[in-house]
Amino acid sequence: MPSSSIPSSPTKTTAGMTVQAAVMPAAGAPIELRALLRPALEPGAILLETIYSEVCGTDVHLHHGHLAGVPYPIIPGHVSVGRVAETGGVVNDLDGAALQGGDVITFLDVHETCGKCWYCTVAKASTRCPSRRVYGITYSADEGLLGGWAEAIYLKPGVKTLRLPANLPPERFIAAGCGLPTSVHAIERAEIQLGDSVVIQGSGPVGLNAVILAQLQGAGQVIVVGAPAQRLEVARAFGADETVDITEHAPGGRIRRVKELTGGRGADVTIEATGVPAAVREGMQMTRDAGRYVIVGQYTDVGEVALNPHWDINRKHLEIRGCWGSDFSHFYRGVRVVARYGDRFGWERMISGEYRLADAGQALADVESLKVVKALIRPR
Amino acid sequence: MPSSSIPSSPTKTTAGMTVQAAVMPAAGAPIELRALLRPALEPGAILLETIYSEVCGTDVHLHHGHLAGVPYPIIPGHVSVGRVAETGGVVNDLDGAALQGGDVITFLDVHETCGKCWYCTVAKASTRCPSRRVYGITYSADEGLLGGWAEAIYLKPGVKTLRLPANLPPERFIAAGCGLPTSVHAIERAEIQLGDSVVIQGSGPVGLNAVILAQLQGAGQVIVVGAPAQRLEVARAFGADETVDITEHAPGGRIRRVKELTGGRGADVTIEATGVPAAVREGMQMTRDAGRYVIVGQYTDVGEVALNPHWDINRKHLEIRGCWGSDFSHFYRGVRVVARYGDRFGWERMISGEYRLADAGQALADVESLKVVKALIRPR
Amino acid sequence: MPSSSIPSSPTKTTAGMTVQAAVMPAAGAPIELRALLRPALEPGAILLETIYSEVCGTDVHLHHGHLAGVPYPIIPGHVSVGRVAETGGVVNDLDGAALQGGDVITFLDVHETCGKCWYCTVAKASTRCPSRRVYGITYSADEGLLGGWAEAIYLKPGVKTLRLPANLPPERFIAAGCGLPTSVHAIERAEIQLGDSVVIQGSGPVGLNAVILAQLQGAGQVIVVGAPAQRLEVARAFGADETVDITEHAPGGRIRRVKELTGGRGADVTIEATGVPAAVREGMQMTRDAGRYVIVGQYTDVGEVALNPHWDINRKHLEIRGCWGSDFSHFYRGVRVVARYGDRFGWERMISGEYRLADAGQALADVESLKVVKALIRPR
Amino acid sequence: MPSSSIPSSPTKTTAGMTVQAAVMPAAGAPIELRALLRPALEPGAILLETIYSEVCGTDVHLHHGHLAGVPYPIIPGHVSVGRVAETGGVVNDLDGAALQGGDVITFLDVHETCGKCWYCTVAKASTRCPSRRVYGITYSADEGLLGGWAEAIYLKPGVKTLRLPANLPPERFIAAGCGLPTSVHAIERAEIQLGDSVVIQGSGPVGLNAVILAQLQGAGQVIVVGAPAQRLEVARAFGADETVDITEHAPGGRIRRVKELTGGRGADVTIEATGVPAAVREGMQMTRDAGRYVIVGQYTDVGEVALNPHWDINRKHLEIRGCWGSDFSHFYRGVRVVARYGDRFGWERMISGEYRLADAGQALADVESLKVVKALIRPR
Repeated sequence: MPSSSIPSSPTKTTAGMTVQAAVMPAAGAPIELRALLRPALEPGAILLETIYSEVCGTDVHLHHGHLAGVPYPIIPGHVSVGRVAETGGVVNDLDGAALQGGDVITFLDVHETCGKCWYCTVAKASTRCPSRRVYGITYSADEGLLGGWAEAIYLKPGVKTLRLPANLPPERFIAAGCGLPTSVHAIERAEIQLGDSVVIQGSGPVGLNAVILAQLQGAGQVIVVGAPAQRLEVARAFGADETVDITEHAPGGRIRRVKELTGGRGADVTIEATGVPAAVREGMQMTRDAGRYVIVGQYTDVGEVALNPHWDINRKHLEIRGCWGSDFSHFYRGVRVVARYGDRFGWERMISGEYRLADAGQALADVESLKVVKALIRPR
Repeated sequence: MPSSSIPSSPTKTTAGMTVQAAVMPAAGAPIELRALLRPALEPGAILLETIYSEVCGTDVHLHHGHLAGVPYPIIPGHVSVGRVAETGGVVNDLDGAALQGGDVITFLDVHETCGKCWYCTVAKASTRCPSRRVYGITYSADEGLLGGWAEAIYLKPGVKTLRLPANLPPERFIAAGCGLPTSVHAIERAEIQLGDSVVIQGSGPVGLNAVILAQLQGAGQVIVVGAPAQRLEVARAFGADETVDITEHAPGGRIRRVKELTGGRGADVTIEATGVPAAVREGMQMTRDAGRYVIVGQYTDVGEVALNPHWDINRKHLEIRGCWGSDFSHFYRGVRVVARYGDRFGWERMISGEYRLADAGQALADVESLKVVKALIRPR
Repeated sequence: MPSSSIPSSPTKTTAGMTVQAAVMPAAGAPIELRALLRPALEPGAILLETIYSEVCGTDVHLHHGHLAGVPYPIIPGHVSVGRVAETGGVVNDLDGAALQGGDVITFLDVHETCGKCWYCTVAKASTRCPSRRVYGITYSADEGLLGGWAEAIYLKPGVKTLRLPANLPPERFIAAGCGLPTSVHAIERAEIQLGDSVVIQGSGPVGLNAVILAQLQGAGQVIVVGAPAQRLEVARAFGADETVDITEHAPGGRIRRVKELTGGRGADVTIEATGVPAAVREGMQMTRDAGRYVIVGQYTDVGEVALNPHWDINRKHLEIRGCWGSDFSHFYRGVRVVARYGDRFGWERMISGEYRLADAGQALADVESLKVVKALIRPR
Repeated sequence: MPSSSIPSSPTKTTAGMTVQAAVMPAAGAPIELRALLRPALEPGAILLETIYSEVCGTDVHLHHGHLAGVPYPIIPGHVSVGRVAETGGVVNDLDGAALQGGDVITFLDVHETCGKCWYCTVAKASTRCPSRRVYGITYSADEGLLGGWAEAIYLKPGVKTLRLPANLPPERFIAAGCGLPTSVHAIERAEIQLGDSVVIQGSGPVGLNAVILAQLQGAGQVIVVGAPAQRLEVARAFGADETVDITEHAPGGRIRRVKELTGGRGADVTIEATGVPAAVREGMQMTRDAGRYVIVGQYTDVGEVALNPHWDINRKHLEIRGCWGSDFSHFYRGVRVVARYGDRFGWERMISGEYRLADAGQALADVESLKVVKALIRPR
């Protein structure tokens, strides 16, 4: 099966030409622009001309070297959207229709889930499959265009792709970004019931997506506990009924405020999306007896938290659910939801910074300082 | 505990005075206006001055004598909303606050669920408790003001009440009506996932509420299969993406249309709210393999349906869930949801006829002929 | 409805005669024998002639004053079995058959669950109903014969009773004891799947019941982590595949041992039944990624535990479920199971001490020193 | 990666030598013995020396041509157990250990589940994946040794294998046979709770496995409705509390008998394993209100059944679950369970006929006439 170039693509380049990429050479080192070779395509591979990639909190962690085993230099950028430039032979989408040059697609950054191991087959917990690899995180820049901060992305054979529906513009999709499948998974674990009071701890991209999704589960009340003020404003614009600014209330006061707002009982469901260990006990105490607590924000190891298993868990009859990663179903469902409810919620309000490849370092700094809610990389 | 009259109520009447009620004297007999005695209150009872009651399809069934064991004469009207006129001593709401004269409340029509029998305690299936009684259906007019088509309703001790939230006007609540808790229960059984394609069979009050609630579960697509055109218009106004008019398509064509709209697979979840046995097989066939089918509309016995258990159930890996009645949690959650999302969906668009007590017979006729979507009784 | 004495009872006494009871006068004070008046029965009440009551770890906590708000003096003994001596009029069982003198019954110690509050009706979490009262714990001896360490027990109207099935001898039922409904609830929360590896932390009555029930869920492997050796022997006699003696292995070694026994992954499901906060983190680490951890043993407040929410919960995709108390369904299901599988498991092997009322203090001491697995009180 | 022959196998033959197989040449044609070429192995493939294969009801259906699209001639036999004769290079088991010559393994007959389609990834309903192929059913004998009625079986690369645990003799495993994963799946769908009354309709291999598995879910009572007497005897030997012989009771009588045995309510859970459409309505009516009904036996199309959706489903608040096929988790869990509980239940009692390859036609006839409960093919 020869690599078929697709004439309809106006932007087609040729294997061997170069592609610009923003590379993180090492933990702590400044981002560099590099020109990489445009690769020849294996059968089943796709070359994607990047429209947008994003900058997320994980990229800040990567820059600080907080994740173990990262093969620097890397091209960051795990969730991206682009136009098909070339395919390695016929490559079909989920419904069996062949991708065409110019098609606007996105792809699941986490791939190589093996489908064969004990976790994939018996436990049906594919986000714990040991074979998983992640675009923008687990690949070296020396291995190819395997991250989104580049003019083009090489999708290996088997990477799961999705066409953006006609009513979903790329900027709305990328605004939802990698926080979307994570939130979809968290919301699935949360099992919100119609009319429930829901607390979201954290007002970053995962928390803000959760504000919207909680309403798309029929929550009766959505309370966001976070900071800074600018993000809480976005939360309210997305429909949060109440926000509690953590820079203005101590932990005890936040718990009291949530109880006050929920008839003295606490939230039916609380979703943690903070990355701060201390938030875990606080969140348990914001949740009512026999409620549910989803922990999705403890993505890296930043220490321990003490809690009282009698009062905080057993006597409360509390249910606590860790939520790791996401699978293709969460990605697929997220895209369906943003397409269907995009006009109502206007996800693109989350974007507050758009950067060229050369400014990727600035983008990282602005995300870290919380200057922006969500930063995009727009390579062209 | 003496009956305490509540001076703050501007409409307080005195025990022994008369109350007007619209009475269904027997199956098939015309509705009559009767003057009934205003009762003295037992401790724990509430006298409610009716603001609105409703006319629903069940009332048409009652008028035709389709339900067994109904103790005619009855005062119809199972879901209602009113103002507290008097209480038998202190009567608390769910949160322990005493009801006051003038408070606008509603109540769960189905009550006397015993909490002691095998169904209540072991099966936790209280909608199958054999002790249940229903306002407007299982009580004779000779037993008291136990139906909503009257100037006042007598709430027996233990009937579960809810204050309407400040942001929920009575006409919006009653528009949602008795179809609301039924739909909440059906939606709970449906376990819609974010992005799912949902088919609603039937465009009466239960179906129309389900159109809204499916969106409040994050459905990716809502398709209504029903009639007449006027109701399908309301469905679209409530957010249905597509409607299929059963007067224009034969069953096979409807199934084909649903498949066409759902990538050839059928709906992830289908909710039956029709009352027509043949709809059951049709609905199964509109649902994708490994999907879910909720049957909530087969409220009375109108015959059988043939199906093929190999193709329609086993090979499809289909899940089918009957859904009977509703309990207090559905009622409570429904009220929370209409309060929170009322402005977005405008439930009151469902009301197309408002009738005085003296016109209750006309209301019944208009509901039966599908002239109106939802008819209200407004006693004063 | 007059109190009807039941002639068939050979042991019937008369109201006003005295009944011997073992009373705990205050926290820390020695148990005393007292003669209390036999009460007259309200309609719906039952006087039970005690066959057996039990001594459980909670009674040790009560004796040390570890529970707040206990109205000493109390008659301890929450789970008991007895013969009906007298009823206040006709009192029916769950299936509507009238209880007769001499019937061997047991009753749910936790009662007065209100059925009306928010927790009972909306959350459907009746074990968090604030109205609950418990025989042998929340009643003063001055209020009546409301604990099992007495020749007779007064069952208030509404207390839920169960006849022992013909194939369930009282000593087998009481051997399962109060650990049974607790374990049934924990096992329900555990959702063990066929073939799962299950770790039970703790080898007291709750843990030992869980050893049996895990097999009645089709566990592929049951590992008990506990002490002392005598209890681990009972665990093996009940079918545990492996036991890990905590007096012989440090926490790290226990975790390693569990991993070794489970293909390196850890248990699919772990059930904590220890009462020791440190066990909580240890148990999480004994559980595989995406597994389930049920916390049922943290019945009193004995301090905090530190854990790492990244490694122990979020990255593990772990599900943690607190489990508080039990309701009538757990009690009913437990009785069914002990009747059906009693010969296979021989629950009575758990009994290692039987005491007269006068020796109740000794029974407490023997339970506390772990000399016995389960101590019974046999009043006559 | 060259094909590595494994010297330890005492029965190793050489590619190119012949292998005896019992072939079904066409629907209705007599079974023939044929000598097929022993194939060379692709990398990742395994050649298995058959110890046992089985004859199941599906093979009778195949012989009558009841299944569509079968590529006759075929080698029947979908579930089998054998010894590894040769592997195509290193082939690992689920835990990453390389298979060795002489290892006793079994394999999942249903394979090539794609892991990529909408059903595999979004619906997570892999038993509805359109790519599935089945050993002994969907392969022509011209394609290779792809069925179990042969001296050797060719396992294609990727076929999922399991080593039999040391405590699981091959005859016990094969006695459980293909009915085992099917039953495991059905039991998973059944969600039996501790103490439940369970009815099994059908006393063939699926039904008999379900009798055992229901007890391994803690059923309080297991009732089998089936025939003939010999199979009901096996059901009782496996622990069924009651059997109802359908040759002795008409449908109405069977329903009455089940109600009698279940306190008048019907079964909490009923599992259909009959293949007879009329059993479906009967089974619904044997199930209590708010119970669960699993349909696993309607494997081929043998017609329709009429039912009343009001009485049989909606008013009953019944849950009905079709159950199609099984996946690797069911297979894995089944093996774990038979290993752990084999001595208790003695699955091998199900075997009542063992046949050589040359007698495969007789085996089919004996299965069809219900002369045997389970027939084995033992090729050597």
